[in-house]
Amino acid sequence: MTARPIGKSAANTMELETLHVRQDGAVLFADIAAPPMNLLGTRTGSRSRVAEQRAEADTALQVLVFASADPDYFISHVDVTRIGEYREQAAKLTGEASLGLLFRYLSKSRLVTIAQIEGRVRGAGSEFALACDMRFAARESAIFSQLEQGFGLIPGAGGIQHLTRLMGRARALEVMLSADDYDAELAGINRALPAASLGEFVRSLAHRIADFPAVGRTALKDRVNAISLAEADDFRRDSDLFLERGRDPETQRRTALAMSRGFQTHDGEIALPNMLSNLVGR
Amino acid sequence: MTARPIGKSAANTMELETLHVRQDGAVLFADIAAPPMNLLGTRTGSRSRVAEQRAEADTALQVLVFASADPDYFISHVDVTRIGEYREQAAKLTGEASLGLLFRYLSKSRLVTIAQIEGRVRGAGSEFALACDMRFAARESAIFSQLEQGFGLIPGAGGIQHLTRLMGRARALEVMLSADDYDAELAGINRALPAASLGEFVRSLAHRIADFPAVGRTALKDRVNAISLAEADDFRRDSDLFLERGRDPETQRRTALAMSRGFQTHDGEIALPNMLSNLVGR
Amino acid sequence: MTARPIGKSAANTMELETLHVRQDGAVLFADIAAPPMNLLGTRTGSRSRVAEQRAEADTALQVLVFASADPDYFISHVDVTRIGEYREQAAKLTGEASLGLLFRYLSKSRLVTIAQIEGRVRGAGSEFALACDMRFAARESAIFSQLEQGFGLIPGAGGIQHLTRLMGRARALEVMLSADDYDAELAGINRALPAASLGEFVRSLAHRIADFPAVGRTALKDRVNAISLAEADDFRRDSDLFLERGRDPETQRRTALAMSRGFQTHDGEIALPNMLSNLVGR
Repeated sequence: MTARPIGKSAANTMELETLHVRQDGAVLFADIAAPPMNLLGTRTGSRSRVAEQRAEADTALQVLVFASADPDYFISHVDVTRIGEYREQAAKLTGEASLGLLFRYLSKSRLVTIAQIEGRVRGAGSEFALACDMRFAARESAIFSQLEQGFGLIPGAGGIQHLTRLMGRARALEVMLSADDYDAELAGINRALPAASLGEFVRSLAHRIADFPAVGRTALKDRVNAISLAEADDFRRDSDLFLERGRDPETQRRTALAMSRGFQTHDGEIALPNMLSNLVGR
Repeated sequence: MTARPIGKSAANTMELETLHVRQDGAVLFADIAAPPMNLLGTRTGSRSRVAEQRAEADTALQVLVFASADPDYFISHVDVTRIGEYREQAAKLTGEASLGLLFRYLSKSRLVTIAQIEGRVRGAGSEFALACDMRFAARESAIFSQLEQGFGLIPGAGGIQHLTRLMGRARALEVMLSADDYDAELAGINRALPAASLGEFVRSLAHRIADFPAVGRTALKDRVNAISLAEADDFRRDSDLFLERGRDPETQRRTALAMSRGFQTHDGEIALPNMLSNLVGR
Repeated sequence: MTARPIGKSAANTMELETLHVRQDGAVLFADIAAPPMNLLGTRTGSRSRVAEQRAEADTALQVLVFASADPDYFISHVDVTRIGEYREQAAKLTGEASLGLLFRYLSKSRLVTIAQIEGRVRGAGSEFALACDMRFAARESAIFSQLEQGFGLIPGAGGIQHLTRLMGRARALEVMLSADDYDAELAGINRALPAASLGEFVRSLAHRIADFPAVGRTALKDRVNAISLAEADDFRRDSDLFLERGRDPETQRRTALAMSRGFQTHDGEIALPNMLSNLVGR
């Protein structure tokens, strides 16, 4: 892990937001590379949707794998200074200003979507990964978090829907109420693998799946979604509540205080759980 | 673990049923202390409800932690000799004679409720813990059981609703059909921790959660409950079936036989699973 | 594990399809013995249903345990050369040509049904085991698979319904999309035990359960099914889609190619996952 001497003020200005895409047979590998910390900004969100739409239209493609170019962060979370902007972007892409509905296209896609996770994956980044069909993670480095409650927010992009169904009521409440980091085991991901073998495992699985008949795959995904994927309205409602909570002055006070302490910087978020528990006011 | 030379006949007469309550900031710690074995009698049930109601009304409080003063028993189960009485108590507190609906207030509460489990937790005691938002247990001593089938009863206070959703059909059937003791891993609790660190873990988590904004917490719990908490009618139906089953002469015969063999005594229930498999008649 | 020098051509001709049944008190033990590899043919399916119907009618019986006489295979999968025939058999037994609805009787039965798994359990064999109330497996030898996607089929006999509810969306998709072998841990069975103690564990549990009052057991199973068992229509729809997919020329091409390479032979299916990933055409 290379040290990255990136200061707080650099966080927004250095944000490049790119998605490196590489096709290998019927599998498209998309590497998220948005230094300094893979914040889910307007461009990252819209680019991943655009990549998915293009892949969806290309009948030669069957599987879409998302990975990160940054060993410390898979996707951090949304850029809280741009919530208005990314909602506008989502509205342009789906007709509705909800990130959860945008991510839901990954779950409904005819493509099989896989998140290959190294480093931290928090907030809407975690919700993006949960919307993928599968999540595989590096045992040594993968760290999960729904940080929203630290600001008085709720996970607004599908986290409540996915985590409650996946983990059950009590573990989902623990993870979300604590806004703490948690590991791959508690996250209930598909598999945690040694970092050294993660890439090859995912690549091999992606090609195996891609070689099976596409029509059968679509039929299967539809049937599984009918049982386990929450309705669009549930995602919509969470999204609205997130927005409503975001207008709370206490939420805004905590956000501003966090920003002044290194929130949304590469180094500042390494120890995010501690930062969150020190925002209590008055 | 201290030896407790308490004979069978002492079980009911020595029952004191108290709840030691201690407030620490926004967290209320309630220790169940109802010697000789923390049977869930009329007073334990009603006192925990009263404690919760008072805490609910006190806006300075955010989290409620239940623990046991007895290292051998968290809560044993209901006092089967007083089923009529505790149902009357429940009716006074909630308007309905159902323990499951009484416990369901814990799940619906604006407070976050945590069960810190050491020792045995069986029957309605287990259902009380399942109604809490989270369950943390001592790895060395926590023992779980739904003992009802041993008497021809069904779990009537929410166990079926919680366990089936939490464990899935097959494990829930195993646990409930066998009426056997099972450990923390099979119980699917939040986390099993060494007894020495359990208290500090729970205390720290409780304070962490309590420091986050209360409005966001309520919004989150509502959304999670909408997905994962069974309807009141489901609890009501289980409660009715429990009562119906309790009128069966075979259930009454097995209960009487168990009572004559040390059921509802501190020492007699240490090896409860064996006792249950030796009640078969004729 | 003894070597079995059985050639491809022998697969169908040597199929004996028998079910060895032995009663021990209130428990009926049924050993599937259909050499060379316990394919789920017309007779195995109908015999297990007949055994279950007889057991159901015999009020002295409470628990039904299915095991295999072949250490390499619990139940392989359906005999794909006889899909028409076994659907006719199912129609005779239940009025509908769906194996999923046939298996669903195991889940709805007043009897407690247990699968004691050693060796491979794939396709409809796995769906048979999932329809039982509990699954216990030998840690050393149990291997699970839903192989259907390798042929462009979907699990048509309840696998989608059970696995999605049991494992959650992501793990169920992994298992079914990959058509790969998976182990007892990923399978989310009740318990994996050393092969040497599996039989005694199941026998003891079966008798324990059988000794508890039958009326309470039925009440409990009904309530658990109300929460966790999918509706008959869901099984029906999967069954129809399976049949529809089976008419696809690509599915038929892959099936024929697999048959020419040892599919449905004892030795040929030991390394089934490799065979499936080498059927891609053109």
